[in-house]
Amino acid sequence: MTIIPPGKTVGILGGGQLGRMLAIAAARLGYATHVYCPDPDSPAFAVASRHSIARYEDADALRAFAASVAVVTYEFENVPAATAEVLARAVPARPNARALAVAQDRVAEKEFARAIGANTTAYARIAATADLPRALDVVGLPAVLKTNRLGYDGKGQRRIERAAELEPSWLDLDGVECILEAFSPFTKEISVIVARAVDGSVAAFDVPENHHEGGILRTSRVPATVGGAAVATAQDIAHRLAAALDYVGVLAVEMFAMADGTILVNEMAPRVHNSGHWTIDACITDQFEQHIRAICGLPLGSPARHSDAEMINLIGQEVEQWADFARDPMAKLHLYGKAAVRPGRKMGHVTRLRPLSGPPRRA
Amino acid sequence: MTIIPPGKTVGILGGGQLGRMLAIAAARLGYATHVYCPDPDSPAFAVASRHSIARYEDADALRAFAASVAVVTYEFENVPAATAEVLARAVPARPNARALAVAQDRVAEKEFARAIGANTTAYARIAATADLPRALDVVGLPAVLKTNRLGYDGKGQRRIERAAELEPSWLDLDGVECILEAFSPFTKEISVIVARAVDGSVAAFDVPENHHEGGILRTSRVPATVGGAAVATAQDIAHRLAAALDYVGVLAVEMFAMADGTILVNEMAPRVHNSGHWTIDACITDQFEQHIRAICGLPLGSPARHSDAEMINLIGQEVEQWADFARDPMAKLHLYGKAAVRPGRKMGHVTRLRPLSGPPRRA
Repeated sequence: MTIIPPGKTVGILGGGQLGRMLAIAAARLGYATHVYCPDPDSPAFAVASRHSIARYEDADALRAFAASVAVVTYEFENVPAATAEVLARAVPARPNARALAVAQDRVAEKEFARAIGANTTAYARIAATADLPRALDVVGLPAVLKTNRLGYDGKGQRRIERAAELEPSWLDLDGVECILEAFSPFTKEISVIVARAVDGSVAAFDVPENHHEGGILRTSRVPATVGGAAVATAQDIAHRLAAALDYVGVLAVEMFAMADGTILVNEMAPRVHNSGHWTIDACITDQFEQHIRAICGLPLGSPARHSDAEMINLIGQEVEQWADFARDPMAKLHLYGKAAVRPGRKMGHVTRLRPLSGPPRRA
Repeated sequence: MTIIPPGKTVGILGGGQLGRMLAIAAARLGYATHVYCPDPDSPAFAVASRHSIARYEDADALRAFAASVAVVTYEFENVPAATAEVLARAVPARPNARALAVAQDRVAEKEFARAIGANTTAYARIAATADLPRALDVVGLPAVLKTNRLGYDGKGQRRIERAAELEPSWLDLDGVECILEAFSPFTKEISVIVARAVDGSVAAFDVPENHHEGGILRTSRVPATVGGAAVATAQDIAHRLAAALDYVGVLAVEMFAMADGTILVNEMAPRVHNSGHWTIDACITDQFEQHIRAICGLPLGSPARHSDAEMINLIGQEVEQWADFARDPMAKLHLYGKAAVRPGRKMGHVTRLRPLSGPPRRA
């Protein structure tokens, strides 16, 4: 069990808003930070002690980066396996390669969830035209066709209403390996953000209820309007997934809460997660600090929530409404320092706080 | 009323822990930051978009700094008047020069407090040997002799128990201009941290009770064990001081709460303050964000407190106890990233949180 004491340098692969918020959390705890990202305009650079601009395939740059840090972590799950391998050979890399591999492959993710006893929607892998009829049989309609790898924020997804749509949709996705998933319309989307420490202890945050539009997260609300039993089931699933992966850090698990109380695992992100941003303003310890604590071998902080919260993403030009949010004294405004406004780009978020509606939960 | 929108650069003069926490707060709101400090090892540099290493007397460097930012603020009150003047000529500088001037001069500070109708301890100015007998007459004994300017963390202070000690103590302080203050042993030390916006609106935090040792703040606790009337009086004084100075930003006012309910103004700091560090973890909006909002012309956030808190400074080698604090899930650990441990040096702080003991106060 390697403990990395404050004063050492935390390496962060990826320089977006997640890397930025991780770097801030690391700095608060007294760590130096080194952010590695190919984009010279990375938002995380502004709050990092040091940064490197290089491609994820640049083995020399990766080795130099690894040599300068005491631990490496990731702000995104689609880290190329070769990249992770170069880093992990030189320095502790957390979470581990297996967690990255499982989360990069939607079929593997669902198989893994089922292996630990969780439920998922019906699904089928599509690697060739011959797989299409069987996939329709197993999954039924309506369904969602997704690329098996490299999808995010609704990219690489097609809704399938009629059987005849499947083949053209798959071809439209360049005929790459896909997953067909059953679409369950009347569900609530929730997520469990759980931290797991080097010693195996876990701490889950309260479960938010998430609302997506066009595949992009719009809002996360706590408490969720699902029952306590569903929340307990969801947290238990996340704990078992984290343990089975021997996971270190923050793991996000998106789930569906069905009307009958069943919980289905949808997907995992081996990292801090947009649906956990409200923890910055509403919890004793936020997901970013929890992640830094975990990867540095420190004990976890209390995830207890002190306020009710609704997190609203500011996407594209919505960021221009910042002044309206700034006028609300209970709205916590977070802007990521991105110069270029582009449609669909996450520019910031706001967390509206309210006094706790239930009894305080304290660790 | 100049509004400085997110995306612009906030200039911070001074690169210590206060500058560091200001830079983090500015980054969260989407501002770039430029920290100016002569010390190449400044803790704030690690979280700033940009930094300049130059002397406070370097007019060219100051002008270049001012040209690169949209607003300038200070992490310390002893900014040379010439420095503040160079900056203010080029860019909005907040708080204003008058607030700096008053806070740099203990006698002026007490005169100002009295002018707005607040009470202070008995005091007398000592500029020459001839002032000594009158000072003793006015102030009585025991008393505290302090340099009128440039004192902090108990530096430049001497306790005076007997009349014969006064002259040698004054000479020991190099015979510089001093203030003799009556010493009131049975009092509680409190402070009001108040933010004042460009439009004149104010928001005070709950009042902490402070405990000093050897002139250095050790702990701040909220709620204070003084009565509600004393708290209201203290906050009212701070509001009047801020208004009278046409202050913009966070102003800290240290006060004594006497057994009879009287409040005496002790000293002012025209900046964020060590006794407000607990606001990071216990309030909806912390003092650093409040200061950035104010100096950028944004409305203030809610200062409401969601938890009880005790802030403990980690001074010198105490920082080596960081792991003990990290084991307490309700202890929020803040380390400043200072490489060199020196006796008396503020290395970090811890805020221990507890559920709110009274009814929640929400803006």
